[in-house]
Amino acid sequence: MQVYLDNAATTRPINAKTWETHIQTAWHNPSAAYGPAADVFIGLKDVRERLQSTLAFGSDVVFTSGGTEANNTALLSAFKKGAHYVTSAVEHPSVYETFRRMEEMGAAVDYIRPRSFCISAEDVAQYVREDTELVSVMHVNNETGAVNDIAAIAQAVKAKNPKTRFHSDGVQALLKLPVSLAGSGIDYYTVSAHKIGGLKGTGALLTGENVPLGKLHYGGEQEYSLRPGTENTLGIQVFGEALVLGAERFDTTLQTVTALRGRLTAGLAQMDGAALNEPAQHVPHIVNVSFEGVRAEVLVRVLGEKGVYIGTGAACSRGKISRVLLESGVQRSLAEGAVRISMSGDNTEKDIDVCLEQMTQAVKDLRKFGRR
Amino acid sequence: MQVYLDNAATTRPINAKTWETHIQTAWHNPSAAYGPAADVFIGLKDVRERLQSTLAFGSDVVFTSGGTEANNTALLSAFKKGAHYVTSAVEHPSVYETFRRMEEMGAAVDYIRPRSFCISAEDVAQYVREDTELVSVMHVNNETGAVNDIAAIAQAVKAKNPKTRFHSDGVQALLKLPVSLAGSGIDYYTVSAHKIGGLKGTGALLTGENVPLGKLHYGGEQEYSLRPGTENTLGIQVFGEALVLGAERFDTTLQTVTALRGRLTAGLAQMDGAALNEPAQHVPHIVNVSFEGVRAEVLVRVLGEKGVYIGTGAACSRGKISRVLLESGVQRSLAEGAVRISMSGDNTEKDIDVCLEQMTQAVKDLRKFGRR
Repeated sequence: MQVYLDNAATTRPINAKTWETHIQTAWHNPSAAYGPAADVFIGLKDVRERLQSTLAFGSDVVFTSGGTEANNTALLSAFKKGAHYVTSAVEHPSVYETFRRMEEMGAAVDYIRPRSFCISAEDVAQYVREDTELVSVMHVNNETGAVNDIAAIAQAVKAKNPKTRFHSDGVQALLKLPVSLAGSGIDYYTVSAHKIGGLKGTGALLTGENVPLGKLHYGGEQEYSLRPGTENTLGIQVFGEALVLGAERFDTTLQTVTALRGRLTAGLAQMDGAALNEPAQHVPHIVNVSFEGVRAEVLVRVLGEKGVYIGTGAACSRGKISRVLLESGVQRSLAEGAVRISMSGDNTEKDIDVCLEQMTQAVKDLRKFGRR
Repeated sequence: MQVYLDNAATTRPINAKTWETHIQTAWHNPSAAYGPAADVFIGLKDVRERLQSTLAFGSDVVFTSGGTEANNTALLSAFKKGAHYVTSAVEHPSVYETFRRMEEMGAAVDYIRPRSFCISAEDVAQYVREDTELVSVMHVNNETGAVNDIAAIAQAVKAKNPKTRFHSDGVQALLKLPVSLAGSGIDYYTVSAHKIGGLKGTGALLTGENVPLGKLHYGGEQEYSLRPGTENTLGIQVFGEALVLGAERFDTTLQTVTALRGRLTAGLAQMDGAALNEPAQHVPHIVNVSFEGVRAEVLVRVLGEKGVYIGTGAACSRGKISRVLLESGVQRSLAEGAVRISMSGDNTEKDIDVCLEQMTQAVKDLRKFGRR
């Protein structure tokens, strides 16, 4: 039996009808000047509009190779030598490392620490200055599931400096909680397909009205000249299908996952030396838990051998102690033993029970070996 | 009946076995720490090695979102303010526009014009200076099919300045002619999946030994920290399958396409006012032909309505007169009427006959209307 509980790392792709359509008729180059190509172009436009209606946002929607590129594009678009930026200390590496790079290039960046894993609007606003070009705070944290009130943050930022732009990485938020960005004051929002049953290699950056957007790549005139290179047509088509499916299943999924979370956290509460890293506000899908005296990486491997697949925080930075947890104030010894269990609507109570059972055994074994 | 003769814009994807495998088992995040994820990671490594063995090149192989990103990465990796660069005047926009951007940022760039559509090693070498950081000359031109002797160019460049790096855009060369880059002096080589039956959204940049590589994106540690963001696993998996299939069919395809080219050019030779834009050296797959007194864009549309799909040079820059042809010395009036017919091994004699027949009729009609 295999139990997949690493849905924040990636999701099993939907068995997309789009695949067959793509192979048969929808594979043409959307920039070409004949009928079937124009149909593909229109199909991409439909997905664009689907994203806009899903989020109630997006004057422009630029498809990218994923969340990383979308985050990079938003941040680097706002780069000015000597300018000031504010972000959180717990962003995904694709935001965090980009700010680090911008510091090397001459930007000044303040990194706000969370309280109870969440970023407060007041804390952010306090750091906004006259010369603050951009603030970036993620919507849902990928390791802890913490939800930040990005509309409140955007408004607090704009109240302090109306010219400061606001970006949010929404990769872990899309279809995980109700998102409506209309009138929120947000300027850039990042989404990714493979966290909602789409394919890896597809994401998008949505922008507010009249928000400037720079380029990371130069070339052809695809994506309204905002992002050159032949579009990842299949990826975008499957993204569209996943958005439709996800919207249909949204309420059921949320109910299922909320119930599973209850079952999981109740089980974890009974485990010796298990400390839940639970944010004040959180999505139900992600549970982060620390086991004292256990190295997370080893626990994940041992569970993997039993067919239970969970993560150690971000899949993107394996082998390191989580910056997110350390910056959130989790003790080093507990951060070392922190794993992330992340659910989808496809998970069952049985999955949770198997996970708890195997985890209890594995933690026991590891502690025993650890003591010798 | 539909006749697809725009294979240089994109190819119909192979009906990949990989799709089913991906959906069932090979969709895990390759950075995760359990067995199925490690299998995906190894699968990507296999494709990497397949590319290396196909091209006899590639100390590093970095997967990208396509040819555009790979070209951008190579060029921008070598950017230094005030430094000098040499390229051809007939590069794909993803090279040409990147150099234009580098000029804005303070680089000096020389653009070499072709002779008989091809770039000569001597012409390139003449422009190489003490401070020339990088030379970029494409392997096969996407509009004319011109083949450049990139090994000769690389050697001439290195003879003039051993420190100058050499990049070639091989997007239209991969599996279109025998390519072996071992010992060629080439430092960077770009390939793309969707020109050989793979999916759009996947490409790679191959580098020689100890060749420095910069980053366009910042984030996680994927691709050996060279290119962050969850890998486009399906795209890379299908790329691998397309490489295997393409290698198996290589000789047959080349024979088929060469014969089809003969049939096509013989037919075009009999058409009134048709002028072949035929490079001294060329791949058989691409035929570029100008019709006097006809606007290419209109011709392509009219043919499209008849189910015959061809291109107007680069699909990436529709509606413009081809820079490639103008820089190659084709008269403006002829460049305006230039179309690209590009074949794959799936095309048949019947396709060529239908194309010629419809083209003859369409050109006749357009000239008649044009004269009124």
